[in-house]
Amino acid sequence: MNNRRTFIKRSLAGALLLSTPNLSAANSMEAQDKVKQKKAKPNDLFKLGMAGYTFVNFKLDQTLEVLERLDIRYLCIKDFHLPFKSTDQEIKDFHAKLAAKNVIGYAVGPIYMKTEEEVANAFEYAKRVGVKTIVGVPNVSLLPYVNQKVKEYDFKYAIHLHGPDIALYPDALDAWNHTKELDPRMGMCLDIGHDLRNGCDPVADLQKYHSRVFDIHIKDVTEASKAGVGIEIGRGEIDFPAFVKMLRKVKYNGVCSLEYEKNMKDPFLGIAESIGYFKAVVDLT
Amino acid sequence: MNNRRTFIKRSLAGALLLSTPNLSAANSMEAQDKVKQKKAKPNDLFKLGMAGYTFVNFKLDQTLEVLERLDIRYLCIKDFHLPFKSTDQEIKDFHAKLAAKNVIGYAVGPIYMKTEEEVANAFEYAKRVGVKTIVGVPNVSLLPYVNQKVKEYDFKYAIHLHGPDIALYPDALDAWNHTKELDPRMGMCLDIGHDLRNGCDPVADLQKYHSRVFDIHIKDVTEASKAGVGIEIGRGEIDFPAFVKMLRKVKYNGVCSLEYEKNMKDPFLGIAESIGYFKAVVDLT
Repeated sequence: MNNRRTFIKRSLAGALLLSTPNLSAANSMEAQDKVKQKKAKPNDLFKLGMAGYTFVNFKLDQTLEVLERLDIRYLCIKDFHLPFKSTDQEIKDFHAKLAAKNVIGYAVGPIYMKTEEEVANAFEYAKRVGVKTIVGVPNVSLLPYVNQKVKEYDFKYAIHLHGPDIALYPDALDAWNHTKELDPRMGMCLDIGHDLRNGCDPVADLQKYHSRVFDIHIKDVTEASKAGVGIEIGRGEIDFPAFVKMLRKVKYNGVCSLEYEKNMKDPFLGIAESIGYFKAVVDLT
Repeated sequence: MNNRRTFIKRSLAGALLLSTPNLSAANSMEAQDKVKQKKAKPNDLFKLGMAGYTFVNFKLDQTLEVLERLDIRYLCIKDFHLPFKSTDQEIKDFHAKLAAKNVIGYAVGPIYMKTEEEVANAFEYAKRVGVKTIVGVPNVSLLPYVNQKVKEYDFKYAIHLHGPDIALYPDALDAWNHTKELDPRMGMCLDIGHDLRNGCDPVADLQKYHSRVFDIHIKDVTEASKAGVGIEIGRGEIDFPAFVKMLRKVKYNGVCSLEYEKNMKDPFLGIAESIGYFKAVVDLT
């Protein structure tokens, strides 16, 4: 009679039967290709995923149950689900849990980095987690150091842009300007809602800056201004058909991860409505 | 930390502040027009609603909270939410609860009717509830009596078709054949999933029989056969863009109510994904 049933802990027997994922390969394109997400448009290069932050108020088991039921196969890992100090065994167990739900942790972040030590720790963490993309928010003064680490680890570094709320990296142009002279693996996580809230056109920005777009947060917002807030996809101001057309035009082959920030203590209906709407846009565009 | 919060009982103060709905007018087109459902296509005549049966395992308060959050403004009333024996005061309170969530109870049913007494009781119930449409499943031998009641009450009677599972009214053609010689207010609730499961084309059937389609159950199904089961809209075999185009072509001005029958003890994610998908089809088609 209540939907706590959603979160009844299932037996982990299924997980234990699965072979331990090969961490170094866990996020290779080969491994990702094995995840058979139902696609109406099988030629699409982009994938549908979930930003871990959407589940800031929920445990990993609950998060994975929702992903399984919505057929979402890619998760950007937040540290509240996999703490920075996790042991190698804990990381292994984490990946096994994801694998049991057909989910791949494809990147970590967003991670805020205010010191060189925090940058260094984040790269070591990502390496131990087995991903090759970090979504991060480094202080601007740290960009040369981040650039050096990107070369050292051969990672992609996706700066998360955050609209008018904070001074750091408000939009795609700003992230572009901060990275265009750096290693080509320095780029951005294009948050289409925050980009719009900063008065930009996220579809045009995807076209202009796609060579440095390594991750995308999809969401909808009520207004193209600082006053805009998160809302179910389809109810707001983002032009999703144009966005999906542009994903195809620029051959974006990363993940579009839903970052749903409305009613975060009870987001499930909104997450599901958003995913349903986005899937239809992909099917019909 | 759990989504029981979805169902925290809210204060009914809001409901009490609303004027008591005028029952006789509650389902007039004038009253319905006052319900401002956000529409991307404001010229559409059809409305998005919910079949009460979707919430067979949930109380009315829970049902209405979900409808409010999904912006669904029309509910087909099932007797487990408003029992046949309800007093006039209970019916009044029921409508007040709906009105507090901007929901109109636009019809009652499906109601199975095996005797003349059950037919007579259903018409009296619908009259007291203040609706002018009954979704029903009458024994075939009762159709002349139902026809007489339709004339007496000036109601529409929508026979619910149920696919290959039961012998009564398997598809739209069958409901058409059973009503085409009767009063023009005798027709069907076109269940597009069950119609497909009986090997029919619900889009073509909507075109052929639209003059007697008074209500529609939208849903998706996994297969166009008896083996087909309910699934989230967009994941199954129904051609929703073609369906929406046909709604417009035949100028259907009733309600398309989601009847979601997968995982009915914990249907919320599936309901929301279905609604999101359908809304996008309406927006993009």
